[in-house]
Amino acid sequence: MRIFLAEKGVSIPRIEVDLGKLEHKRPEFSARNPFETIPALELDDGTMIDESIAICRYIEELYPEPNLFGATTLERALVEMWQRRLEWRLFLPIAQAFRHSHPRMAEMENPQVPGWGAANRPKALRGMGIVDEALRDRRFIAGDRFTVADITGLVALDFAKPARIAIPPELAHLNRWHETLATRPSAAA
Amino acid sequence: MRIFLAEKGVSIPRIEVDLGKLEHKRPEFSARNPFETIPALELDDGTMIDESIAICRYIEELYPEPNLFGATTLERALVEMWQRRLEWRLFLPIAQAFRHSHPRMAEMENPQVPGWGAANRPKALRGMGIVDEALRDRRFIAGDRFTVADITGLVALDFAKPARIAIPPELAHLNRWHETLATRPSAAA
Repeated sequence: MRIFLAEKGVSIPRIEVDLGKLEHKRPEFSARNPFETIPALELDDGTMIDESIAICRYIEELYPEPNLFGATTLERALVEMWQRRLEWRLFLPIAQAFRHSHPRMAEMENPQVPGWGAANRPKALRGMGIVDEALRDRRFIAGDRFTVADITGLVALDFAKPARIAIPPELAHLNRWHETLATRPSAAA
Repeated sequence: MRIFLAEKGVSIPRIEVDLGKLEHKRPEFSARNPFETIPALELDDGTMIDESIAICRYIEELYPEPNLFGATTLERALVEMWQRRLEWRLFLPIAQAFRHSHPRMAEMENPQVPGWGAANRPKALRGMGIVDEALRDRRFIAGDRFTVADITGLVALDFAKPARIAIPPELAHLNRWHETLATRPSAAA
């Protein structure tokens, strides 16, 4: 979300919600956002939109440039395809490995199932290998320009470290991509 | 996908891929669709689009009516929000409970982790409870009319049976919604 807003050049007033203090479980928040997820966008009329990608799409419609969801029907389909592939086949297994193995996640992921954490390591490595291959002939994951799907890839790969999954150095395209994304100004925003 | 096409009134020639025979793992399929998921849409120029929702969005752009992804910026954001809530908070836990407990899934979900299957039952029931509450004041999940998010809800709830999760009868709004969706002509398409 932070990276997306930086890429769009859009600034929105923020209220921090401290997960460590379980602020997302306070009644005044969960009454309006029942799944207690962050981030959530509050509109002027009080409507709450949660789910990061739903918020990103809303902002994309209000501020169409730079375009991050695709400029043509086909490009929009391919961005959405990669967005979902990266969420389900890269982010999800890395996040599950993290959530089910890291002591710090014991409260949020209850019960932690160590066998499930372990089962996600090969899934994550498989996803990394397929993404590496896809990047062989292009700079960014959905084509030759940066899109929202790249942000999802960066977030997923950045989770590999706390999940204690080493990104194989022989995946040259994946590592080049990760480096390209991690050194964009938006990543430091 | 089948339900979406029926709601749109769009017909596309189909090639069946038999998962039981591992046809999705044949080299000629996986070379063009590396994550080996179905459905996948093949365009006239040979481009393959996979991920159901990416295909649905593509079809929605080509055939805008009836509108299933939202008609205004705000409605599109709310449909996307519910689409994602239902995928991650309802479909995913029900599907995980199924994949990690049902003997028929032993080959596709290897290793099955029974503890993870069990851990998803309360997650699925929590999701059902929150969706029930959301449906208290409206006919469909994203508002007063049927959208793609309702299809995701129907698919998720239909998975509850093979996952052996009983939908609590006291969730009256959820059960009314499930019944409404399951009796639309598209569900029998």
